[in-house]
Amino acid sequence: MSDGIAVVSGGLDSVTLLYHLVAMGYNPDVISFNYLQRHRKELDYAQAAAERLNLRWDCIDIGRVGEALAEGGSALVDIAHSEVPEGHYAEENMKQTVVPNRNAIMATIATGVCVARGGQYVALAPHNGDAAIYPDCRPAFWREFEAAMKLANEGFVPREWGLLTPFIKMSKTDIASVAMRLQVPLALTWSCYKGDKIHCGRCGTCVERLEAIHDSGAFVYDETAYEDENYWRTQIEKASTK
Amino acid sequence: MSDGIAVVSGGLDSVTLLYHLVAMGYNPDVISFNYLQRHRKELDYAQAAAERLNLRWDCIDIGRVGEALAEGGSALVDIAHSEVPEGHYAEENMKQTVVPNRNAIMATIATGVCVARGGQYVALAPHNGDAAIYPDCRPAFWREFEAAMKLANEGFVPREWGLLTPFIKMSKTDIASVAMRLQVPLALTWSCYKGDKIHCGRCGTCVERLEAIHDSGAFVYDETAYEDENYWRTQIEKASTK
Repeated sequence: MSDGIAVVSGGLDSVTLLYHLVAMGYNPDVISFNYLQRHRKELDYAQAAAERLNLRWDCIDIGRVGEALAEGGSALVDIAHSEVPEGHYAEENMKQTVVPNRNAIMATIATGVCVARGGQYVALAPHNGDAAIYPDCRPAFWREFEAAMKLANEGFVPREWGLLTPFIKMSKTDIASVAMRLQVPLALTWSCYKGDKIHCGRCGTCVERLEAIHDSGAFVYDETAYEDENYWRTQIEKASTK
Repeated sequence: MSDGIAVVSGGLDSVTLLYHLVAMGYNPDVISFNYLQRHRKELDYAQAAAERLNLRWDCIDIGRVGEALAEGGSALVDIAHSEVPEGHYAEENMKQTVVPNRNAIMATIATGVCVARGGQYVALAPHNGDAAIYPDCRPAFWREFEAAMKLANEGFVPREWGLLTPFIKMSKTDIASVAMRLQVPLALTWSCYKGDKIHCGRCGTCVERLEAIHDSGAFVYDETAYEDENYWRTQIEKASTK
């Protein structure tokens, strides 16, 4: 019997979250969202992770929502015509990868599914490294949001119901350390925003992933294939000398 | 040029909200949601109201979300097998009509669309009469939720961005009074949860609608056809003698 919901994209952070939850004794159902993200091949990685851990997995199709959000011109949604920007994650052009209110939308739906199934928590993997660009990754948002969700479902959820965001104060490097400790198979997670055959190594999330995997030492067992394995180093230098 | 988003189901409350907003000088885009609600014919009424007022209307299909929420057994979602309960709205069996987190889900998506389009507000029609059964119609929830949405989109919305819930302290009878003052064509709004050819007059929302339209005096111009025009009176008496 499951005890809550974990929202998993199939990326390094959320797959590590799943391994972490299981290691901590939780038994979540896993849900993923198809919002017509350009890199929706990540969903196969989410499904595979759930299957490895013997957890129920559902993909909820919110493609029409993605379409409506793409009117803002986000480069992450397939039908938008802009290109995925390259370079370091913290750069201004990464703002193009903001999908308006995406995390709140996914967490709100996950909360509804959690209530419908009688679960006790919704677990998500926001972390400190995303907070600079994405306001819906900041602790202040998640705190308010949890309070709102408790009120929205008063009488329908147990008093102890809440959000689990164990990585909220951690950097992506910290998450890669957790992944290494739990022996999360990194090559079976998908980060690249471009969603081609292998990780490009150049988009914002690839640069961030490679930096984190290297800084944590997890590179010693990383079997992920990257189109460009070294671009990230030049970008980190560029960012740090600014 | 529109200035915000109004979430409109096609019912008495939200269509009156739309007329009210226009009367107050707002120029909203209208969005409705198809979550496989049994009474999704209401969506035609939402579209028609937007067209009468020359407003842009979009219907966002979140049917897969509705399906996932229906696991909780809500009688409102089509694929659930339970019957729509009859009788007074405040009765315990009306809890079967709760769709977990529905308002929060719709408002979160509407917020995303609002941000994508550069709007300044999301308007919704929760009212005091719904607050007894539906926790996501209570002012405390909406207050927290607005704060969460502002944080989720910090830097991407103007400082004055917010939710508009002008009916939050009003009863449904008060809303019917507003409708009458604005000459909202009541027969061109749809409330009935059953979604048959005409309003049944017996389900919770029909009983509540008829009570409000009578108590406000709006019945003098109500041209809505009801299968059972008098059942609501017996239910009100039953509720008040308890």
